[in-house]
Amino acid sequence: MAIPYPHFIATEKAAMDAGLLHPSSPSSVILTQDDLKKIAAYKAVEYVESGMVLGLGTGSTAKHAVDRIGELLRQGKLKDIVGIPTSTKTHDQALSLGIPLSDLDSHPTVDLAIDGADEVDPFLNLVKGRGGSLLREKMVEGACKKFIVIVDESKLVNYLGGSGLAMPVEVIQFCWRFTAARLQKLFQEAGCVAKLRTFAEKDEPYVTDNGNFIVDLYFERSIGDLKAASDAILQLAGVVEHGMFLDMATTVIVAGELGLTVKNK
Amino acid sequence: MAIPYPHFIATEKAAMDAGLLHPSSPSSVILTQDDLKKIAAYKAVEYVESGMVLGLGTGSTAKHAVDRIGELLRQGKLKDIVGIPTSTKTHDQALSLGIPLSDLDSHPTVDLAIDGADEVDPFLNLVKGRGGSLLREKMVEGACKKFIVIVDESKLVNYLGGSGLAMPVEVIQFCWRFTAARLQKLFQEAGCVAKLRTFAEKDEPYVTDNGNFIVDLYFERSIGDLKAASDAILQLAGVVEHGMFLDMATTVIVAGELGLTVKNK
Repeated sequence: MAIPYPHFIATEKAAMDAGLLHPSSPSSVILTQDDLKKIAAYKAVEYVESGMVLGLGTGSTAKHAVDRIGELLRQGKLKDIVGIPTSTKTHDQALSLGIPLSDLDSHPTVDLAIDGADEVDPFLNLVKGRGGSLLREKMVEGACKKFIVIVDESKLVNYLGGSGLAMPVEVIQFCWRFTAARLQKLFQEAGCVAKLRTFAEKDEPYVTDNGNFIVDLYFERSIGDLKAASDAILQLAGVVEHGMFLDMATTVIVAGELGLTVKNK
Repeated sequence: MAIPYPHFIATEKAAMDAGLLHPSSPSSVILTQDDLKKIAAYKAVEYVESGMVLGLGTGSTAKHAVDRIGELLRQGKLKDIVGIPTSTKTHDQALSLGIPLSDLDSHPTVDLAIDGADEVDPFLNLVKGRGGSLLREKMVEGACKKFIVIVDESKLVNYLGGSGLAMPVEVIQFCWRFTAARLQKLFQEAGCVAKLRTFAEKDEPYVTDNGNFIVDLYFERSIGDLKAASDAILQLAGVVEHGMFLDMATTVIVAGELGLTVKNK
């Protein structure tokens, strides 16, 4: 099942907007995955207006959007923006760009959030958190009037978990093996394997901004009813949050070789 | 609605078992609340058998049970017990009593847990966690074949929240005000007030064993469907766990002025 393309925009035009192509460039330029991410990010920032409270996402795609917002502020094209970062990493990036920052305690309502995703299904449900910031992202993006997701086309899946990559679950450190075993058992019919996330370079557990561990779930088959799966995961006492973002995205911008797709809820 | 008394046991006999009354005592002895807790705790420990993996609860009532288990081990009346403590406090108490300890990672199945509760409703649903250990308690007690709750009769309520005291929710520190406001709004029809738990002696937030804060919810009226309330709380992204223990207790032992009540699920 493919996502329909309601608003096709020529890649060439979008690439020019993102500064990746100049009118003088040869027309057979090859765009990298990072170029596609940048194109989607720049398109999303077109939705930003002066005076907005903005949720700032985390990850390689969201980074381009935060860079672009900083650029437009410097150029005076945007004014009176308040950024709510979704991770300490994005906090530091935004600070270095001079974006004024706040938090949900001071700004409980967010006008617009822009963030990447690891998977997008045909109903605009997401898997997020391979970057490890799923909990703060979910808090900020759950408080948004509008949530724009930006991805390159490799992130489109027929069902969540369908990429074969991880669906992350944030768990408390206390008895994490026990919690991981319960998670794996919960989805045994989907051929689930649960693994503690470690730092790539060293054999130590990855620790989230909130001091918790991440258990990555890998599925062989679809887990079926996502709402039921979400509730079942959250009912496990050692679980803090999971990386399924159900019914949260209002717009998904997909950058692909054939163009930009803007899909609205 | 009162809990029926299916197994009335004379208080006098129970108090004697707990060493609070001697055959020579005057029969009009007045039992304190702590005496009642001790009577219930000693009764619960009668269910413990040698060789069991035991969940060890936390709080003033559970403390008596842990003391009693330590005593029976020392006397050689119990052997080969493995204790799974539900808090660092109980861990330290059990260690000092010489009770061999382990955790859920090594012993994912627990034979029996004994713990107190802050409220018990007529269906044996509980509020726990005024002691601050609700998350570890829920993990251990959720892994038990049998879960005995020990309370004095002041803990019996018609509905959860009905004592007017707190129903605790463990939340991540990040933007806790935002999470507290969402919790209060969730139960506004029940007249909910949400307050951050602080240490009594100083104006600093109480921090759980897992590095989180506690938001205490106070209700004016019943919150209605407990299962729906549980799911709604857990769906908030900043929430780690709540203090409602639904459908978990298999036995509740109530010590009152008129005797001991043993109610089984």
